[in-house]
Amino acid sequence: MLILAFDTSERYSPADLPHAGSVALFDAEDETKIMALSRRELDPGTDHAADLSENIRTVLKEAGKKPADVDLVAVTKGPGSFTGLRVGVSAAKTFAFALGIPAVGINTLDAIAQNTPAEHEKAFLVYDARRDYVYTGLYRRRDGKMCLEDDYSFLPVAEAVALIPDDAAVFGPGCFAYPDDFPTALTDPLLSRVRIESVVDLAFEAYRAGNIGDVHDLNPLYLRPSAAEEKRKNV
Amino acid sequence: MLILAFDTSERYSPADLPHAGSVALFDAEDETKIMALSRRELDPGTDHAADLSENIRTVLKEAGKKPADVDLVAVTKGPGSFTGLRVGVSAAKTFAFALGIPAVGINTLDAIAQNTPAEHEKAFLVYDARRDYVYTGLYRRRDGKMCLEDDYSFLPVAEAVALIPDDAAVFGPGCFAYPDDFPTALTDPLLSRVRIESVVDLAFEAYRAGNIGDVHDLNPLYLRPSAAEEKRKNV
Repeated sequence: MLILAFDTSERYSPADLPHAGSVALFDAEDETKIMALSRRELDPGTDHAADLSENIRTVLKEAGKKPADVDLVAVTKGPGSFTGLRVGVSAAKTFAFALGIPAVGINTLDAIAQNTPAEHEKAFLVYDARRDYVYTGLYRRRDGKMCLEDDYSFLPVAEAVALIPDDAAVFGPGCFAYPDDFPTALTDPLLSRVRIESVVDLAFEAYRAGNIGDVHDLNPLYLRPSAAEEKRKNV
Repeated sequence: MLILAFDTSERYSPADLPHAGSVALFDAEDETKIMALSRRELDPGTDHAADLSENIRTVLKEAGKKPADVDLVAVTKGPGSFTGLRVGVSAAKTFAFALGIPAVGINTLDAIAQNTPAEHEKAFLVYDARRDYVYTGLYRRRDGKMCLEDDYSFLPVAEAVALIPDDAAVFGPGCFAYPDDFPTALTDPLLSRVRIESVVDLAFEAYRAGNIGDVHDLNPLYLRPSAAEEKRKNV
């Protein structure tokens, strides 16, 4: 089966590593190994709304496939860039609805947690929720995958820090926003980025587990209303 | 033929007339008369990304149609709400691309100009471009449709005012933003709203004229970069 995956969740951009997300087409034909057929990085300098669509076309074309060949859409549903998530999730839903196929939304933290270096069995992931709040998840390695323990937390930074287990690797985009609060965080920025392979892996796992909702119930996960939304009445 | 049309361009909201856009399905079977089969207003209180998709499903269901029955997608491409346009245009492109059908983007001013009361042969349309700039179009009635004369203008308000012909009706969302500069503007807020019938009429006209580009070249028309985009590097 063919899985179209894309990520437009990126919100933080260390100056030395611009990244706007990615689009890729995967083949999960044998249902055990997932192979990328083609992939594209989105251009940080352009508009997601234009660039995502163009790159979806390109990955399909490069792989010699048509839209109707796609069996499943995988997308990061957030947290992340407010506009990026809207565009990405809207595109995922519309594409899937038009073809009558399922779409799976993956929590950005779950995807990033899969980057945990092999020497760590636990990871404490941090996403910046602004105004001194963070969104966190504690993960444990099971059967090669990093799995969420309990639920996500949305907390003031100081309270989140108090939750970090001694033996957990600490990383995620939020650690760059509050470096003084997370002095032991792993600092390689690549660790804190969404890898599209993780998105498709998690989506395929959800698909095989039958853990797929109605495509119209897939919605962006926002940690707060956008600044634009908060002042909408004045616009 | 079946035309799916939606408008998510709305940016201004007089408090007494909230409106977030609309979705409708039209039948243009005989290629002369276009009939609405079903329509929905978007909910001003919810997220376009969620609401648009849900309403596309609903209008199709109400009309007893499937996504694959749609032959053409019509969408407002701007100017308008930055996020609304991204979501709307992205959804239009993705839906059309998935099905291999064309999508036509309609300039918001062109759609609003069709509201010109019958007693006027000319109309001067005004859209707020913020910071004392407006985006304008001068229209003339031809064969029952209001057609753009020359090109659109993007000008300081004072310069735009100087361009208004004596015999033109003046209206559009921008007139509400700068009431002192457009004292003769028609003040019925309904005149300044996009009617989805106008969007589908103009799109069908473009379709019949063969005036349809590649679906991937359809992009939102922004008058300025968004506030979010301008400070992106600091986010």
